[in-house]
Amino acid sequence: MASFKRIAVVGAGLIGGSILLAAARKGLAASLACWSRSPGSRETLRAFGVAEVFDDAAACVRGADLVVVTTPVDASEATFLAISPGLSPGAVVTDAGSVKSAILAAARRLPAANPFVGAHPMAGGEKAGAAHASARLFEGRVCFLTPTGAEDPQALAAARRFWQELGSVLHETDAASHDEIVAAISHVPHAAASALMLAVMEQPGFRRFAVGAGLRDTTRIAAGEENLWLGIMLANSRHIAAGLRAFEIRAAEIRAAVETGDAATLRRLLAEARRARQNLDRSE
Amino acid sequence: MASFKRIAVVGAGLIGGSILLAAARKGLAASLACWSRSPGSRETLRAFGVAEVFDDAAACVRGADLVVVTTPVDASEATFLAISPGLSPGAVVTDAGSVKSAILAAARRLPAANPFVGAHPMAGGEKAGAAHASARLFEGRVCFLTPTGAEDPQALAAARRFWQELGSVLHETDAASHDEIVAAISHVPHAAASALMLAVMEQPGFRRFAVGAGLRDTTRIAAGEENLWLGIMLANSRHIAAGLRAFEIRAAEIRAAVETGDAATLRRLLAEARRARQNLDRSE
Repeated sequence: MASFKRIAVVGAGLIGGSILLAAARKGLAASLACWSRSPGSRETLRAFGVAEVFDDAAACVRGADLVVVTTPVDASEATFLAISPGLSPGAVVTDAGSVKSAILAAARRLPAANPFVGAHPMAGGEKAGAAHASARLFEGRVCFLTPTGAEDPQALAAARRFWQELGSVLHETDAASHDEIVAAISHVPHAAASALMLAVMEQPGFRRFAVGAGLRDTTRIAAGEENLWLGIMLANSRHIAAGLRAFEIRAAEIRAAVETGDAATLRRLLAEARRARQNLDRSE
Repeated sequence: MASFKRIAVVGAGLIGGSILLAAARKGLAASLACWSRSPGSRETLRAFGVAEVFDDAAACVRGADLVVVTTPVDASEATFLAISPGLSPGAVVTDAGSVKSAILAAARRLPAANPFVGAHPMAGGEKAGAAHASARLFEGRVCFLTPTGAEDPQALAAARRFWQELGSVLHETDAASHDEIVAAISHVPHAAASALMLAVMEQPGFRRFAVGAGLRDTTRIAAGEENLWLGIMLANSRHIAAGLRAFEIRAAEIRAAVETGDAATLRRLLAEARRARQNLDRSE
């Protein structure tokens, strides 16, 4: 028997679309519903043929026992307000936003009868949109859950079940810790990749024909959609700014060693970075 | 008939080993010779079974009509001095170093009877050593040639033929332009990846378990061997320092926009970087 009666996915881009495909394949719910603001996305979602597609968010969530909000971080509050009139009492709301403290605050807009359990699946990519969705997007990937400890245990259990059944590896922590972690491992790297792309393209020696895997990989995530990242960066600004400051200091250290021909310092910095990078590929 | 009588590869790591495998597969020479300083590498090279392996650099190049120097950038001068006594008059010397002005200067140490044609195949990876060699490493990859215009046309033709037959796409330019180009597209990204790895690992939120493809790709090249990169960075310091300065400025711009919540500036910077990155994937 399916774990849920009806799952509604609100805002169906890469993450929402992938949730629908995975939920359909795994038979997580007796029925699926979804909403998107854009007519183009609704067409893509209809083509999937797995969910009832709505152009009204409140109508989409009606009758669902689990609602997954996958709109951009800076649209969370508006989405919570938009779906509230349609929510069935007791329906559990979860989300997939990359920043959790701000969304937890926004979730206070939901009716008291609807428990919220914040989530952040560490999956995605620089190619946005439901057209790039995949039923296997969450397989083996970390998904953060950020319960407050105050929620109904059944609601938390439902959120856990949902994300786990999509194939995620759950990791529970509080919203503040989550935001600090993702700043370090995801948001600061994104900003760094963008800064590198900007700096490289303005160098007098920049020639596209000669670009190889090194620059491509180093800047790949900078191809991410700016409005999505704008919302994330502003909602997690404190940790990101701190990480970027550290980054500027490290870049200046390497630059100073290069400029002054300080081989010992440069070797030490490069060796430290090399060891840390190799450690990323070791199991915990 | 083979293009060369005997090709000697001096210093056989990833690049040298790959040259040997590719030259053997394509039948570029009637015989192949190679030298490595390290007993372990010599063992690997012997296991390839394609070249006569020497522990003396001068002996290795004896009788060769083409000599390829693939030792690290900062060892170039010492290598040129070491092979000089063994070079047959008229033997063409080429190399694979990532910096060309400094190596061109070092090549003045070669006997007058041995023309030098600098080369830089844009191939490699963060995994050093002959053990990671591949006969297909150069296929379709850009290889810079940096002739001075003063060399014997036949020597230049021989170097062109060699690199082309390995599968490279030749691009000829002067050494100074080459160094400016590779600073922008390769050396600055390497330094940036190292700086990012150092900054991220010291963040309080850094957790290895949560690291995904974003940070992995952004820092992949930072796993490169530090002594190799030390030599490259010191030999091309002026252009690299300039690029890193631009990079620090761009990172600080993004950070200031994040800190002050300047959405318009942040959107503009992220959008500019996104477009530039997408352009990398377009054909010229």
